[in-house]
Amino acid sequence: MQQDDFRFSQSLRVRWAEADMQGIVFNGHYLTYADVGITEYFRAMGQTYSGETGAKGSDFFAVRTLLEYRSPARFDDVLEVHVRIARLGNSSMQFLIGIYRDTEILVNGEIVYVHADQSNRRPSPIPQVFRDAVSTFERLQPEGRLS
Amino acid sequence: MQQDDFRFSQSLRVRWAEADMQGIVFNGHYLTYADVGITEYFRAMGQTYSGETGAKGSDFFAVRTLLEYRSPARFDDVLEVHVRIARLGNSSMQFLIGIYRDTEILVNGEIVYVHADQSNRRPSPIPQVFRDAVSTFERLQPEGRLS
Amino acid sequence: MQQDDFRFSQSLRVRWAEADMQGIVFNGHYLTYADVGITEYFRAMGQTYSGETGAKGSDFFAVRTLLEYRSPARFDDVLEVHVRIARLGNSSMQFLIGIYRDTEILVNGEIVYVHADQSNRRPSPIPQVFRDAVSTFERLQPEGRLS
Amino acid sequence: MQQDDFRFSQSLRVRWAEADMQGIVFNGHYLTYADVGITEYFRAMGQTYSGETGAKGSDFFAVRTLLEYRSPARFDDVLEVHVRIARLGNSSMQFLIGIYRDTEILVNGEIVYVHADQSNRRPSPIPQVFRDAVSTFERLQPEGRLS
Repeated sequence: MQQDDFRFSQSLRVRWAEADMQGIVFNGHYLTYADVGITEYFRAMGQTYSGETGAKGSDFFAVRTLLEYRSPARFDDVLEVHVRIARLGNSSMQFLIGIYRDTEILVNGEIVYVHADQSNRRPSPIPQVFRDAVSTFERLQPEGRLS
Repeated sequence: MQQDDFRFSQSLRVRWAEADMQGIVFNGHYLTYADVGITEYFRAMGQTYSGETGAKGSDFFAVRTLLEYRSPARFDDVLEVHVRIARLGNSSMQFLIGIYRDTEILVNGEIVYVHADQSNRRPSPIPQVFRDAVSTFERLQPEGRLS
Repeated sequence: MQQDDFRFSQSLRVRWAEADMQGIVFNGHYLTYADVGITEYFRAMGQTYSGETGAKGSDFFAVRTLLEYRSPARFDDVLEVHVRIARLGNSSMQFLIGIYRDTEILVNGEIVYVHADQSNRRPSPIPQVFRDAVSTFERLQPEGRLS
Repeated sequence: MQQDDFRFSQSLRVRWAEADMQGIVFNGHYLTYADVGITEYFRAMGQTYSGETGAKGSDFFAVRTLLEYRSPARFDDVLEVHVRIARLGNSSMQFLIGIYRDTEILVNGEIVYVHADQSNRRPSPIPQVFRDAVSTFERLQPEGRLS
């Protein structure tokens, strides 16, 4: 994973309540940071995912999250949450996440979302308009189905 | 406020992620503890409030929370969250909260809920069945309208 | 409370994990927002309060928080957390908090901090340099001791 | 992963603030649940890990967390957080996590901790007394060095 591979990043500052007694960010909060990053990634790409997708009857659900903690973030650090879609399947997609403090990688990982029907949670195909938006937006083309 | 005034309490243990760099529980988490206490208070009283009240079109919303922090809770402390309804109005009610570690009061406060229509958030009367349940359950009768 | 009374505000966007099943921000998170606002208020005033105050042996501790919830914030809302010090006592100070969405007040409240020795938590006087910084920074002069 | 493989589990109830607008637990909270499980696992094994390990100059740090979300937990669900140590290395260990609602697996995963010096975060060997405690406690013996 290289910082240059990411076209998009979102900055945020570590909050007091997110640092633990060791003086470092508790691991669960990085999933919140990743989620903030993904929300802003969608916004930057012009694909709003603002909780209103439910109106259309489908939504994305996380099915897998992997994080590797290399160096700790601390209270008041400004972090850059890098996000890119590295794989687009029929109904699932994989995000790569890189959380940096300046050029130092602190946490990297991957998050897999499945596009599913909201009522029965059965997978449904990711719409073509979304694939097109990703393809246009990303610097590195994702693996998998673009059409 | 005296510990004996409360008929009900719910115990919980402080989680690692809830203690901050000062080694003490961040203030916002006490509102989560109070919320856990109120949920269990409702359960003990036989009035489920499990997020399904929406089906009936009304719900309770917090309109005011006041907490006073007297002594800090720390990681791994077992706390007793005491809850009682001290006032029942037409559409609002006031909870008193006392969070103890053994017999030592750590945090006390009050939380006011309004019973409201879910769609337009306009206040609606608290049902009589709820008033009856409170009256039967409580050691100290709440002020205000019981019928 | 008027928006104009505040010289300082900090913007933040509501995170997905902060909205509950009612679609609105859970009340405890507003204390996190207030804390973010106070941290940035200190920074804007040039008085860093970055958890390193412990080095000097004293720190601020919250002793009272009061919030009134007038209208709910929702996922993805951009909020402006307004902060000002309205009272400066010998060892305590009162913040007024106003959380707005544009010009609409959503939550208002007050937070009282005590300046205390870290080891025994006994109150210690707020340093004069801090009083001077507040007096210089604020639009409305706080009540209480400025010298 | 089978429920029977775990000797230990810790029950907890999903809090209101942990369910999101989809009505399901936000993914980051499962890492908090896992952390609660690990804390109680240590307690059950007689190896307190109560934040005071710092006194001895070393501590455990999470370096990797992997969670797979199979079925969502909802507000008020009672969950059983199953924990076991599946691998004991020289300075690292791997926990397997299985979060069940009754006999239904909702989330499974692994968490890797490194035992490290608190000041410089360099890995240090896991003490023999800890290995012995794990070996005595576990139903399935962990892979790796037990002595």
